[in-house]
Amino acid sequence: MRTVREVGEFGLIERMRRRVRTAPSVVVGIGDDAAVLRGPGAGQRLLFASDMVVEGVHFLRRRVPARWIGWKALACNVSDIAAMGGVPHWAVVSLGLPRATPVRFVDELYAGLARCARRYGVALVGGDTVRAPQVVVDVAILGTAERRRLTLRRGARVGDQLFVTGRLGGSYRSGRHARFLPRLAEAQALLRRVRVHAMMDLSDGLASDLWQMSRASRVTLRVEAARIPVARAGRTVYHALMDGEDFELLFAVGAREAARMPRRIGRCPVTRVGAAVRRGAGVELLRRDGRIAPLLPRGFRHF
Amino acid sequence: MRTVREVGEFGLIERMRRRVRTAPSVVVGIGDDAAVLRGPGAGQRLLFASDMVVEGVHFLRRRVPARWIGWKALACNVSDIAAMGGVPHWAVVSLGLPRATPVRFVDELYAGLARCARRYGVALVGGDTVRAPQVVVDVAILGTAERRRLTLRRGARVGDQLFVTGRLGGSYRSGRHARFLPRLAEAQALLRRVRVHAMMDLSDGLASDLWQMSRASRVTLRVEAARIPVARAGRTVYHALMDGEDFELLFAVGAREAARMPRRIGRCPVTRVGAAVRRGAGVELLRRDGRIAPLLPRGFRHF
Repeated sequence: MRTVREVGEFGLIERMRRRVRTAPSVVVGIGDDAAVLRGPGAGQRLLFASDMVVEGVHFLRRRVPARWIGWKALACNVSDIAAMGGVPHWAVVSLGLPRATPVRFVDELYAGLARCARRYGVALVGGDTVRAPQVVVDVAILGTAERRRLTLRRGARVGDQLFVTGRLGGSYRSGRHARFLPRLAEAQALLRRVRVHAMMDLSDGLASDLWQMSRASRVTLRVEAARIPVARAGRTVYHALMDGEDFELLFAVGAREAARMPRRIGRCPVTRVGAAVRRGAGVELLRRDGRIAPLLPRGFRHF
Repeated sequence: MRTVREVGEFGLIERMRRRVRTAPSVVVGIGDDAAVLRGPGAGQRLLFASDMVVEGVHFLRRRVPARWIGWKALACNVSDIAAMGGVPHWAVVSLGLPRATPVRFVDELYAGLARCARRYGVALVGGDTVRAPQVVVDVAILGTAERRRLTLRRGARVGDQLFVTGRLGGSYRSGRHARFLPRLAEAQALLRRVRVHAMMDLSDGLASDLWQMSRASRVTLRVEAARIPVARAGRTVYHALMDGEDFELLFAVGAREAARMPRRIGRCPVTRVGAAVRRGAGVELLRRDGRIAPLLPRGFRHF
């Protein structure tokens, strides 16, 4: 079995280059000091983000096929751009690999990256390939959004209704944490129909992410246990609140807009889960017994 | 001594946020799903690159102070943008850290990043902070270049003269590999004065990087041993050719432009080291004894 050591850096870059499609906006892609891109038009904003996945922390090589590691590394970045109300265009991939990594593993990882890139209209335009004690994949992504459609975390207002896409919890158990479909089309469809005050993607778990939106918007968010859509693998509301890596959208819209919110966008369920109830940061859970309990910002702990 | 585990992800992000200056072009910086940036004007190209540095591979924690690890992680990206004829504007930082990392180490690393950012006019606008078995820093950078000033690797022509900035070799021994000053001002000054056909930064070692330019430009490059500027820590022409991590500029200009090339740009020496001698990829060394020997694409091996 050939290893990364035998193929070398340039061999790896060449393998990647063969797999990626380019786009009209890419003037110079993989292979120079930097990619050269045609910038966006007037009235557009650039969106810039990165996400790192590390072997042994975010995935185990023996449990997640290389193809899905590659998919996940790009998909979580696409999810970030979607949650801003934007469309992704370009990405660079920094890849750390042990010397003894089978080339086949790298090929599969690239295949996953390339597949996700094609599906979401992203051109892979460069990056870095280095040695590392374990597999590390860091993707940086660039997208654009129309100025007036930007959806930040900080726009939720008192009286807004809170919605989530999809179903939450059990993402690791079901393998969805790697194979998920970022809600790009759903976010775009949503923004064409209603005015969204605040939006973010769910990565650390609903409880923790509610705190993020609450702090950024300086409003108290209350979610209703009976309304939270629990994924089959999530089993309980507790897991739906705490598990993380759902990569669904959480968003806030005004009460009038909420009344005409569709129950589905395409095949994706959209569920009202709560509301912004008063000023000042805080997150509360309306339990099934009618009591209101504070919800602590737990969820996925990185450290 | 407080560790990363005690401070947690949000504590770390907050520490970073406090250190960075923003810029008028940054609409939303650290803390949302993605940074929001004002795009470049017409006639400008976006430049997009990333570079990853890994503990144990690119630096040893006990030998390189955290401040210089941070500096290096950003500086090598600035060097990439400079080599394209561009100016850097924004960067995102993905940081992998072991749980037991002292917070002080992270603070120092951020300080190095922030210092490099200030010096080169880069706004740090976001990124990711995750757990990893050793320190990994991946920086993705965005810059702009005027279309007509873009300098790729692929523009060298037969008859062009080759130049390098600074002195080469011994970068690891002297510590310059982490503390170097990317040649941003020098590249910009150069492009104002002369027409540059091809340019790149020297990262894998002159011999290996000459091959990159040669292949991209499809010309044979010949360097003269007697002309190669050797750094004090480099000692020999061999090290100047092979050591890598010089982060100096290698560039090709037409013969007429070469005749009026200054010997210095500011305090930085500019040295003619060879020429593009004929069509077809290849790299040759004119030895001191007058013989011409092929130069193999060795230098820093990543794997």
